[in-house]
Amino acid sequence: MKVGYIQLKTHFGEKQKNFNKVADLLKDVDDADIVVLPELFATGYTFKSIEEVQSLSESKDGETSKFLQKMAKRTNAVFIGGFVEKFENKLFNSAMMVSKEEVIDIYRKLHLFNKEKKWFSPGNTKLTVNNIKGTKVGMMICFDWTFPEVTRTLSLLGAEIIAHPANLVLPYCQNAMKTRCFCNRLYAITANRIGVEQRGEDSFEFTGRSQITSYSGEILSSAPSDAEFVDIVEIFPKKTRNKNINQFNNVHEDRREKFYWNNL
Amino acid sequence: MKVGYIQLKTHFGEKQKNFNKVADLLKDVDDADIVVLPELFATGYTFKSIEEVQSLSESKDGETSKFLQKMAKRTNAVFIGGFVEKFENKLFNSAMMVSKEEVIDIYRKLHLFNKEKKWFSPGNTKLTVNNIKGTKVGMMICFDWTFPEVTRTLSLLGAEIIAHPANLVLPYCQNAMKTRCFCNRLYAITANRIGVEQRGEDSFEFTGRSQITSYSGEILSSAPSDAEFVDIVEIFPKKTRNKNINQFNNVHEDRREKFYWNNL
Repeated sequence: MKVGYIQLKTHFGEKQKNFNKVADLLKDVDDADIVVLPELFATGYTFKSIEEVQSLSESKDGETSKFLQKMAKRTNAVFIGGFVEKFENKLFNSAMMVSKEEVIDIYRKLHLFNKEKKWFSPGNTKLTVNNIKGTKVGMMICFDWTFPEVTRTLSLLGAEIIAHPANLVLPYCQNAMKTRCFCNRLYAITANRIGVEQRGEDSFEFTGRSQITSYSGEILSSAPSDAEFVDIVEIFPKKTRNKNINQFNNVHEDRREKFYWNNL
Repeated sequence: MKVGYIQLKTHFGEKQKNFNKVADLLKDVDDADIVVLPELFATGYTFKSIEEVQSLSESKDGETSKFLQKMAKRTNAVFIGGFVEKFENKLFNSAMMVSKEEVIDIYRKLHLFNKEKKWFSPGNTKLTVNNIKGTKVGMMICFDWTFPEVTRTLSLLGAEIIAHPANLVLPYCQNAMKTRCFCNRLYAITANRIGVEQRGEDSFEFTGRSQITSYSGEILSSAPSDAEFVDIVEIFPKKTRNKNINQFNNVHEDRREKFYWNNL
Protein backbone atom coordinates (compact mmCIF):
# COMPACT_ATOMS: atom_id res chain seq x y z
CA MET A 1 0.00 0.00 0.00
CA LYS A 2 1.33 3.45 -0.92
CA VAL A 3 0.78 6.20 1.59
CA GLY A 4 2.08 9.71 1.91
CA TYR A 5 1.61 13.29 2.93
CA ILE A 6 1.77 16.82 1.66
CA GLN A 7 3.62 19.42 3.73
CA LEU A 8 2.86 22.97 2.70
CA LYS A 9 2.96 26.61 3.68
CA THR A 10 -0.67 27.66 4.00
CA HIS A 11 -1.75 31.18 3.09
CA PHE A 12 -4.14 32.35 5.76
CA GLY A 13 -7.74 32.66 4.58
CA GLU A 14 -6.99 31.98 0.91
CA LYS A 15 -8.64 28.63 0.32
CA GLN A 16 -8.40 28.65 -3.47
CA LYS A 17 -4.73 29.58 -3.41
CA ASN A 18 -4.07 26.73 -0.96
CA PHE A 19 -6.10 24.29 -3.05
CA ASN A 20 -4.05 25.29 -6.09
CA LYS A 21 -0.84 24.76 -4.18
CA VAL A 22 -1.92 21.29 -3.04
CA ALA A 23 -2.94 20.40 -6.60
CA ASP A 24 0.44 21.58 -7.81
CA LEU A 25 2.32 19.60 -5.14
CA LEU A 26 0.31 16.54 -6.21
CA LYS A 27 1.07 16.87 -9.90
CA ASP A 28 3.59 14.00 -9.92
CA VAL A 29 1.57 11.75 -7.63
CA ASP A 30 -0.27 9.25 -9.79
CA ASP A 31 -0.05 6.12 -7.67
CA ALA A 32 -1.01 6.43 -4.02
CA ASP A 33 -3.61 4.85 -1.77
CA ILE A 34 -3.75 7.34 1.11
CA VAL A 35 -2.51 10.94 1.24
CA VAL A 36 -2.67 13.03 4.42
CA LEU A 37 -2.78 16.83 4.45
CA PRO A 38 -2.16 19.12 7.44
CA GLU A 39 -4.73 20.31 9.96
CA LEU A 40 -6.74 23.29 8.60
CA PHE A 41 -4.66 23.04 5.43
CA ALA A 42 -6.85 25.32 3.34
CA THR A 43 -7.70 28.03 5.87
CA GLY A 44 -4.67 28.65 8.05
CA TYR A 45 -4.63 28.47 11.80
CA THR A 46 -4.09 31.78 13.55
CA PHE A 47 -7.58 33.25 13.77
CA LYS A 48 -8.22 36.72 15.17
CA SER A 49 -11.93 36.45 15.84
CA ILE A 50 -14.80 34.03 15.94
CA GLU A 51 -16.24 35.83 12.91
CA GLU A 52 -13.11 34.91 10.99
CA VAL A 53 -13.48 31.25 11.98
CA GLN A 54 -17.16 31.40 10.94
CA SER A 55 -16.29 32.92 7.59
CA LEU A 56 -13.84 30.11 6.81
CA SER A 57 -16.09 27.31 8.05
CA GLU A 58 -17.98 24.91 5.84
CA SER A 59 -20.00 21.73 6.04
CA LYS A 60 -18.62 18.32 5.19
CA ASP A 61 -20.05 18.86 1.71
CA GLY A 62 -18.36 22.22 1.19
CA GLU A 63 -15.58 23.35 -1.09
CA THR A 64 -12.80 21.48 0.75
CA SER A 65 -14.52 18.13 0.32
CA LYS A 66 -15.20 18.97 -3.34
CA PHE A 67 -11.55 19.82 -3.86
CA LEU A 68 -10.34 16.65 -2.09
CA GLN A 69 -12.78 14.57 -4.11
CA LYS A 70 -11.32 16.05 -7.28
CA MET A 71 -7.81 15.16 -6.10
CA ALA A 72 -9.04 11.66 -5.17
CA LYS A 73 -10.39 11.20 -8.69
CA ARG A 74 -7.11 12.36 -10.19
CA THR A 75 -4.83 10.18 -8.07
CA ASN A 76 -7.09 7.33 -6.99
CA ALA A 77 -6.00 7.99 -3.39
CA VAL A 78 -8.14 8.56 -0.32
CA PHE A 79 -7.37 11.98 1.20
CA ILE A 80 -7.45 12.97 4.85
CA GLY A 81 -7.13 16.67 5.65
CA GLY A 82 -8.23 19.25 8.18
CA PHE A 83 -10.93 21.89 7.78
CA VAL A 84 -13.07 24.30 9.81
CA GLU A 85 -16.35 22.46 10.18
CA LYS A 86 -19.65 24.13 10.84
CA PHE A 87 -22.23 21.71 12.15
CA GLU A 88 -25.49 22.61 13.90
CA ASN A 89 -24.18 26.12 14.62
CA LYS A 90 -21.04 24.82 16.26
CA LEU A 91 -17.53 25.19 14.88
CA PHE A 92 -15.12 22.27 15.03
CA ASN A 93 -11.49 21.71 14.18
CA SER A 94 -12.19 18.65 12.05
CA ALA A 95 -10.59 16.27 9.60
CA MET A 96 -12.37 14.63 6.70
CA MET A 97 -11.59 11.38 4.94
CA VAL A 98 -12.54 11.63 1.28
CA SER A 99 -12.56 9.11 -1.55
CA LYS A 100 -13.40 9.76 -5.16
CA GLU A 101 -16.95 8.62 -4.37
CA GLU A 102 -17.75 10.27 -1.05
CA VAL A 103 -16.81 11.82 2.28
CA ILE A 104 -16.15 8.60 4.16
CA ASP A 105 -15.89 10.01 7.67
CA ILE A 106 -15.40 13.14 9.77
CA TYR A 107 -13.34 13.38 12.96
CA ARG A 108 -13.62 16.38 15.31
CA LYS A 109 -10.49 17.14 17.32
CA LEU A 110 -10.97 15.92 20.87
CA HIS A 111 -8.07 17.80 22.46
CA LEU A 112 -7.98 21.45 21.46
CA PHE A 113 -4.65 23.25 21.75
CA ASN A 114 -4.10 26.74 23.05
CA LYS A 115 -6.48 29.39 21.66
CA GLU A 116 -8.31 26.79 19.61
CA LYS A 117 -10.40 26.58 22.78
CA LYS A 118 -11.64 30.08 22.03
CA TRP A 119 -12.61 29.27 18.46
CA PHE A 120 -13.82 25.70 18.42
CA SER A 121 -16.13 23.38 20.30
CA PRO A 122 -14.34 20.30 21.60
CA GLY A 123 -14.82 17.26 19.40
CA ASN A 124 -17.98 15.25 19.96
CA THR A 125 -17.37 12.39 17.54
CA LYS A 126 -16.10 8.99 18.57
CA LEU A 127 -12.69 7.80 17.56
CA THR A 128 -13.37 5.44 14.67
CA VAL A 129 -11.59 3.38 12.05
CA ASN A 130 -12.63 3.07 8.43
CA ASN A 131 -11.82 0.35 5.97
CA ILE A 132 -9.78 1.86 3.14
CA LYS A 133 -8.88 -0.65 0.45
CA GLY A 134 -8.81 -3.45 3.03
CA THR A 135 -6.84 -1.46 5.62
CA LYS A 136 -8.27 0.05 8.79
CA VAL A 137 -7.48 3.75 9.05
CA GLY A 138 -8.17 6.02 12.03
CA MET A 139 -7.83 9.78 12.34
CA MET A 140 -6.51 12.08 15.03
CA ILE A 141 -5.51 15.75 14.81
CA CYS A 142 -2.27 17.38 15.95
CA PHE A 143 -2.27 17.84 19.79
CA ASP A 144 -4.30 14.63 20.19
CA TRP A 145 -0.89 12.90 20.02
CA THR A 146 -0.14 14.18 23.54
CA PHE A 147 -2.85 11.96 25.00
CA PRO A 148 -1.72 8.34 24.74
CA GLU A 149 -5.34 7.31 25.13
CA VAL A 150 -6.04 8.41 21.55
CA THR A 151 -3.54 6.17 19.77
CA ARG A 152 -4.35 3.38 22.22
CA THR A 153 -8.08 3.64 21.56
CA LEU A 154 -7.54 3.67 17.80
CA SER A 155 -5.22 0.68 18.11
CA LEU A 156 -7.77 -1.27 20.17
CA LEU A 157 -10.36 -0.42 17.51
CA GLY A 158 -8.09 -2.13 15.02
CA ALA A 159 -6.43 0.84 13.34
CA GLU A 160 -3.52 -0.23 11.17
CA ILE A 161 -2.74 3.33 10.13
CA ILE A 162 -3.41 6.60 11.94
CA ALA A 163 -3.81 9.57 9.62
CA HIS A 164 -2.61 12.56 11.63
CA PRO A 165 -3.16 16.02 10.14
CA ALA A 166 -1.17 18.52 12.22
CA ASN A 167 -0.16 22.14 12.66
CA LEU A 168 2.68 21.45 15.06
CA VAL A 169 4.45 24.28 16.84
CA LEU A 170 6.16 22.27 19.62
CA PRO A 171 9.16 20.01 18.99
CA TYR A 172 7.96 16.85 20.77
CA CYS A 173 5.51 15.07 18.49
CA GLN A 174 7.78 13.57 15.87
CA ASN A 175 9.86 11.75 18.43
CA ALA A 176 6.81 10.76 20.46
CA MET A 177 5.22 9.12 17.43
CA LYS A 178 7.99 6.51 17.51
CA THR A 179 6.79 5.49 20.97
CA ARG A 180 3.10 5.75 20.11
CA CYS A 181 3.57 3.52 17.04
CA PHE A 182 5.87 0.98 18.67
CA CYS A 183 3.66 0.52 21.73
CA ASN A 184 0.56 0.05 19.58
CA ARG A 185 2.21 -1.60 16.59
CA LEU A 186 0.62 0.58 13.96
CA TYR A 187 1.68 3.07 11.31
CA ALA A 188 1.11 6.82 11.58
CA ILE A 189 1.24 9.52 8.93
CA THR A 190 1.80 12.94 10.49
CA ALA A 191 1.28 15.74 7.94
CA ASN A 192 2.51 19.07 9.26
CA ARG A 193 2.74 22.53 7.74
CA ILE A 194 5.56 25.05 7.64
CA GLY A 195 5.86 28.81 7.85
CA VAL A 196 5.20 31.58 10.34
CA GLU A 197 1.68 32.92 10.76
CA GLN A 198 1.78 36.36 12.39
CA ARG A 199 -1.71 37.69 12.91
CA GLY A 200 -2.70 40.29 15.49
CA GLU A 201 -1.09 39.53 18.84
CA ASP A 202 -0.37 35.91 17.90
CA SER A 203 2.48 34.38 16.00
CA PHE A 204 2.90 30.67 15.39
CA GLU A 205 5.84 29.03 13.69
CA PHE A 206 4.94 25.66 12.23
CA THR A 207 7.76 23.19 12.38
CA GLY A 208 7.41 20.90 9.36
CA ARG A 209 9.18 17.56 9.71
CA SER A 210 6.10 15.66 8.59
CA GLN A 211 6.71 12.03 9.26
CA ILE A 212 5.64 8.50 8.45
CA THR A 213 6.32 6.19 11.38
CA SER A 214 6.22 2.40 11.22
CA TYR A 215 4.72 -0.08 13.67
CA SER A 216 8.23 -0.83 14.92
CA GLY A 217 8.91 2.83 15.67
CA GLU A 218 11.06 3.45 12.62
CA ILE A 219 10.83 6.71 10.70
CA LEU A 220 10.03 5.81 7.09
CA SER A 221 9.83 9.39 5.83
CA SER A 222 10.80 12.72 7.34
CA ALA A 223 10.23 16.06 5.65
CA PRO A 224 12.43 19.13 6.09
CA SER A 225 11.48 21.72 8.71
CA ASP A 226 11.27 24.62 6.29
CA ALA A 227 10.24 23.49 2.82
CA GLU A 228 7.13 22.27 1.09
CA PHE A 229 7.41 18.56 0.56
CA VAL A 230 5.56 15.52 -0.73
CA ASP A 231 6.47 11.94 -0.09
CA ILE A 232 4.84 8.60 -0.82
CA VAL A 233 6.22 5.38 0.65
CA GLU A 234 5.21 1.76 0.49
CA ILE A 235 4.00 0.21 3.75
CA PHE A 236 2.63 -3.18 4.77
CA PRO A 237 -0.38 -2.59 7.02
CA LYS A 238 -1.22 -6.28 7.41
CA LYS A 239 1.92 -6.60 9.51
CA THR A 240 0.31 -4.43 12.18
CA ARG A 241 -2.32 -7.10 12.79
CA ASN A 242 0.31 -9.13 14.61
CA LYS A 243 0.58 -7.41 17.99
CA ASN A 244 3.30 -9.73 19.27
CA ILE A 245 6.69 -8.22 19.99
CA ASN A 246 8.17 -11.62 20.85
CA GLN A 247 6.76 -15.09 21.45
CA PHE A 248 5.62 -14.16 24.96
CA ASN A 249 4.43 -10.56 24.61
CA ASN A 250 1.52 -8.95 22.83
CA VAL A 251 0.89 -5.22 23.21
CA HIS A 252 -2.87 -5.68 23.36
CA GLU A 253 -3.30 -8.95 25.22
CA ASP A 254 -0.71 -8.09 27.89
CA ARG A 255 -2.67 -5.05 29.03
CA ARG A 256 -3.81 -5.32 32.66
CA GLU A 257 -6.96 -3.30 32.31
CA LYS A 258 -8.19 -3.79 35.85
CA PHE A 259 -5.10 -2.05 37.24
CA TYR A 260 -5.49 1.08 35.11
CA TRP A 261 -6.97 4.38 36.19
CA ASN A 262 -10.44 3.59 34.97
CA ASN A 263 -10.69 0.74 37.45
CA LEU A 264 -9.08 2.32 40.49
CA MET B 1 15.41 17.04 46.38
CA LYS B 2 18.36 14.86 45.40
CA VAL B 3 17.57 11.70 43.49
CA GLY B 4 19.68 9.19 41.66
CA TYR B 5 20.34 5.66 40.57
CA ILE B 6 22.90 2.93 40.65
CA GLN B 7 23.71 1.10 37.41
CA LEU B 8 25.61 -2.12 37.95
CA LYS B 9 26.65 -5.43 36.47
CA THR B 10 24.86 -8.06 38.52
CA HIS B 11 26.48 -11.42 39.21
CA PHE B 12 23.82 -14.07 38.77
CA GLY B 13 22.72 -15.73 41.98
CA GLU B 14 25.35 -14.06 44.18
CA LYS B 15 23.32 -11.78 46.40
CA GLN B 16 26.05 -10.93 48.87
CA LYS B 17 28.51 -10.08 46.11
CA ASN B 18 25.91 -7.80 44.52
CA PHE B 19 25.08 -6.18 47.86
CA ASN B 20 28.79 -5.51 48.37
CA LYS B 21 29.05 -3.99 44.94
CA VAL B 22 26.08 -1.69 45.57
CA ALA B 23 27.54 -0.66 48.93
CA ASP B 24 30.82 0.09 47.20
CA LEU B 25 29.16 2.13 44.45
CA LEU B 26 27.36 4.07 47.19
CA LYS B 27 30.47 4.89 49.17
CA ASP B 28 30.61 8.51 48.01
CA VAL B 29 26.86 9.08 48.26
CA ASP B 30 26.19 10.86 51.53
CA ASP B 31 23.44 13.25 50.53
CA ALA B 32 20.51 11.82 48.58
CA ASP B 33 16.78 11.55 49.13
CA ILE B 34 15.86 8.76 46.72
CA VAL B 35 18.09 6.17 45.05
CA VAL B 36 16.78 3.65 42.52
CA LEU B 37 18.41 0.29 41.82
CA PRO B 38 17.76 -2.01 38.85
CA GLU B 39 15.11 -4.72 38.62
CA LEU B 40 16.27 -7.93 40.36
CA PHE B 41 19.50 -6.13 41.18
CA ALA B 42 20.75 -8.70 43.70
CA THR B 43 19.76 -11.96 41.97
CA GLY B 44 20.25 -11.55 38.26
CA TYR B 45 17.61 -12.10 35.63
CA THR B 46 18.23 -15.10 33.39
CA PHE B 47 16.78 -17.99 35.34
CA LYS B 48 17.03 -21.58 34.11
CA SER B 49 14.34 -23.19 36.25
CA ILE B 50 11.54 -22.41 38.63
CA GLU B 51 13.63 -24.01 41.40
CA GLU B 52 16.30 -21.42 40.77
CA VAL B 53 13.74 -18.62 41.06
CA GLN B 54 12.45 -20.19 44.27
CA SER B 55 15.93 -20.45 45.73
CA LEU B 56 16.57 -16.74 45.13
CA SER B 57 13.18 -15.58 46.39
CA GLU B 58 12.52 -13.90 49.69
CA SER B 59 9.80 -12.10 51.58
CA LYS B 60 9.63 -8.35 51.89
CA ASP B 61 11.46 -8.76 55.19
CA GLY B 62 14.29 -10.80 53.72
CA GLU B 63 17.94 -10.07 53.19
CA THR B 64 17.40 -7.57 50.38
CA SER B 65 15.21 -5.35 52.53
CA LYS B 66 17.71 -5.64 55.38
CA PHE B 67 20.51 -4.62 53.05
CA LEU B 68 18.55 -1.69 51.63
CA GLN B 69 17.61 -0.58 55.12
CA LYS B 70 21.28 -0.56 56.06
CA MET B 71 22.05 1.56 52.99
CA ALA B 72 19.14 3.85 53.89
CA LYS B 73 20.57 4.35 57.35
CA ARG B 74 23.98 5.11 55.92
CA THR B 75 22.85 7.62 53.29
CA ASN B 76 19.53 8.87 54.67
CA ALA B 77 17.97 8.07 51.27
CA VAL B 78 14.90 6.00 50.48
CA PHE B 79 15.84 3.07 48.21
CA ILE B 80 13.75 1.44 45.51
CA GLY B 81 15.05 -1.78 44.00
CA GLY B 82 13.86 -5.03 42.48
CA PHE B 83 13.81 -8.48 44.09
CA VAL B 84 12.30 -11.92 43.66
CA GLU B 85 9.36 -11.91 46.03
CA LYS B 86 7.80 -15.00 47.49
CA PHE B 87 4.34 -14.33 48.84
CA GLU B 88 1.72 -16.94 49.68
CA ASN B 89 3.54 -19.53 47.58
CA LYS B 90 3.60 -17.31 44.53
CA LEU B 91 6.70 -15.76 43.01
CA PHE B 92 6.63 -12.16 41.83
CA ASN B 93 9.03 -9.85 40.02
CA SER B 94 8.69 -7.08 42.61
CA ALA B 95 10.21 -3.81 43.71
CA MET B 96 10.44 -2.62 47.29
CA MET B 97 10.62 0.91 48.62
CA VAL B 98 12.70 1.01 51.78
CA SER B 99 13.50 3.75 54.27
CA LYS B 100 15.80 3.53 57.23
CA GLU B 101 12.73 2.75 59.35
CA GLU B 102 10.74 0.30 57.25
CA VAL B 103 9.69 -1.31 53.98
CA ILE B 104 7.31 1.42 52.84
CA ASP B 105 5.69 -0.39 49.93
CA ILE B 106 5.94 -3.32 47.51
CA TYR B 107 5.03 -3.23 43.83
CA ARG B 108 4.61 -6.41 41.78
CA LYS B 109 5.36 -6.06 38.08
CA LEU B 110 2.09 -5.92 36.16
CA HIS B 111 3.49 -6.55 32.69
CA LEU B 112 5.89 -9.48 32.59
CA PHE B 113 8.40 -9.57 29.74
CA ASN B 114 9.40 -12.63 27.76
CA LYS B 115 10.21 -15.74 29.84
CA GLU B 116 9.39 -13.90 33.04
CA LYS B 117 5.94 -15.29 32.31
CA LYS B 118 7.34 -18.76 32.99
CA TRP B 119 8.89 -17.79 36.31
CA PHE B 120 6.60 -15.22 37.88
CA SER B 121 2.94 -14.63 38.62
CA PRO B 122 1.67 -11.41 37.07
CA GLY B 123 1.51 -8.54 39.55
CA ASN B 124 -1.58 -8.36 41.73
CA THR B 125 -0.85 -5.11 43.58
CA LYS B 126 -2.40 -1.80 42.66
CA LEU B 127 -0.31 1.00 41.28
CA THR B 128 0.22 3.32 44.23
CA VAL B 129 2.09 6.44 45.24
CA ASN B 130 3.85 6.95 48.56
CA ASN B 131 4.77 10.17 50.26
CA ILE B 132 8.54 10.35 50.53
CA LYS B 133 9.76 13.48 52.30
CA GLY B 134 6.77 15.42 51.00
CA THR B 135 7.00 14.08 47.44
CA LYS B 136 4.71 11.49 45.90
CA VAL B 137 6.64 8.59 44.43
CA GLY B 138 5.24 5.72 42.37
CA MET B 139 6.93 2.55 41.18
CA MET B 140 6.88 0.62 37.94
CA ILE B 141 9.26 -2.08 36.67
CA CYS B 142 11.05 -2.24 33.32
CA PHE B 143 8.61 -3.41 30.57
CA ASP B 144 5.73 -1.63 32.31
CA TRP B 145 6.99 1.46 30.42
CA THR B 146 5.60 -0.02 27.21
CA PHE B 147 2.05 0.38 28.49
CA PRO B 148 1.21 4.09 28.62
CA GLU B 149 -1.58 3.25 31.04
CA VAL B 150 0.98 2.69 33.80
CA THR B 151 2.61 6.14 33.77
CA ARG B 152 -0.81 7.70 33.18
CA THR B 153 -2.34 5.91 36.15
CA LEU B 154 0.56 6.88 38.40
CA SER B 155 0.30 10.47 37.18
CA LEU B 156 -3.43 10.58 37.88
CA LEU B 157 -2.70 9.20 41.35
CA GLY B 158 -0.47 12.23 41.87
CA ALA B 159 2.97 10.74 41.30
CA GLU B 160 5.63 13.42 41.02
CA ILE B 161 8.40 10.89 40.51
CA ILE B 162 8.27 7.39 39.05
CA ALA B 163 10.98 5.09 40.36
CA HIS B 164 11.65 2.64 37.55
CA PRO B 165 13.93 -0.31 38.27
CA ALA B 166 14.75 -2.00 34.96
CA ASN B 167 16.68 -4.76 33.23
CA LEU B 168 16.33 -3.35 29.73
CA VAL B 169 17.38 -5.36 26.72
CA LEU B 170 15.53 -3.41 24.01
CA PRO B 171 16.63 0.06 22.83
CA TYR B 172 13.30 1.90 23.04
CA CYS B 173 12.66 2.78 26.67
CA GLN B 174 15.06 5.64 27.25
CA ASN B 175 13.67 7.65 24.38
CA ALA B 176 10.09 6.73 25.25
CA MET B 177 10.53 8.03 28.79
CA LYS B 178 10.85 11.54 27.35
CA THR B 179 7.33 11.18 25.97
CA ARG B 180 5.94 9.45 29.07
CA CYS B 181 7.32 12.20 31.32
CA PHE B 182 6.34 15.15 29.10
CA CYS B 183 2.79 13.92 28.58
CA ASN B 184 2.28 13.35 32.30
CA ARG B 185 4.53 16.13 33.58
CA LEU B 186 6.43 14.04 36.07
CA TYR B 187 9.98 12.88 36.71
CA ALA B 188 11.18 9.33 36.16
CA ILE B 189 14.30 7.57 37.37
CA THR B 190 15.09 4.54 35.22
CA ALA B 191 17.82 2.38 36.80
CA ASN B 192 19.13 -0.21 34.38
CA ARG B 193 21.89 -2.80 34.59
CA ILE B 194 24.70 -3.70 32.23
CA GLY B 195 26.42 -6.86 31.13
CA VAL B 196 25.61 -10.06 29.28
CA GLU B 197 23.92 -12.90 31.13
CA GLN B 198 24.43 -16.17 29.25
CA ARG B 199 22.70 -19.01 31.02
CA GLY B 200 21.57 -22.23 29.36
CA GLU B 201 19.83 -21.49 26.08
CA ASP B 202 19.23 -17.86 26.96
CA SER B 203 21.45 -14.85 26.65
CA PHE B 204 20.42 -11.31 27.51
CA GLU B 205 22.50 -8.21 27.01
CA PHE B 206 21.46 -5.41 29.33
CA THR B 207 21.83 -2.02 27.78
CA GLY B 208 22.67 0.41 30.59
CA ARG B 209 21.90 4.04 29.77
CA SER B 210 20.07 4.52 33.06
CA GLN B 211 18.30 7.81 32.89
CA ILE B 212 16.65 10.56 34.91
CA THR B 213 13.97 12.28 32.83
CA SER B 214 12.30 15.55 33.76
CA TYR B 215 8.65 16.53 33.60
CA SER B 216 9.43 18.53 30.46
CA GLY B 217 10.96 15.52 28.74
CA GLU B 218 14.56 16.56 29.24
CA ILE B 219 17.22 14.01 30.11
CA LEU B 220 18.86 15.16 33.36
CA SER B 221 21.23 12.21 33.67
CA SER B 222 22.24 9.46 31.28
CA ALA B 223 24.61 6.64 32.18
CA PRO B 224 26.96 4.89 29.77
CA SER B 225 25.80 1.67 28.08
CA ASP B 226 28.66 -0.47 29.32
CA ALA B 227 29.95 0.75 32.69
CA GLU B 228 28.80 0.75 36.28
CA PHE B 229 27.64 4.20 37.20
CA VAL B 230 26.10 6.24 39.97
CA ASP B 231 24.54 9.64 39.60
CA ILE B 232 22.61 11.95 41.91
CA VAL B 233 20.92 15.08 40.57
CA GLU B 234 18.81 17.80 42.09
CA ILE B 235 15.18 17.93 40.96
CA PHE B 236 12.15 20.05 41.86
CA PRO B 237 9.18 17.72 42.24
CA LYS B 238 6.75 20.46 43.28
CA LYS B 239 6.95 21.75 39.71
CA THR B 240 5.20 18.60 38.53
CA ARG B 241 2.07 19.61 40.44
CA ASN B 242 1.38 22.20 37.77
CA LYS B 243 -0.01 20.15 34.90
CA ASN B 244 -0.41 23.13 32.58
CA ILE B 245 1.69 23.22 29.45
CA ASN B 246 0.40 26.69 28.51
CA GLN B 247 -2.38 28.94 29.74
CA PHE B 248 -5.01 26.90 27.92
CA ASN B 249 -3.82 23.32 28.25
CA ASN B 250 -3.50 20.95 31.18
CA VAL B 251 -2.44 17.35 30.59
CA HIS B 252 -4.87 15.99 33.16
CA GLU B 253 -7.87 18.27 32.82
CA ASP B 254 -7.84 18.16 29.01
CA ARG B 255 -8.37 14.41 28.95
CA ARG B 256 -11.64 13.41 27.25
CA GLU B 257 -12.25 10.28 29.26
CA LYS B 258 -15.60 9.45 27.70
CA PHE B 259 -14.00 9.06 24.28
CA TYR B 260 -11.35 6.59 25.42
CA TRP B 261 -11.42 2.81 25.03
CA ASN B 262 -12.91 2.18 28.42
CA ASN B 263 -16.06 4.05 27.43
CA LEU B 264 -16.50 2.82 23.88
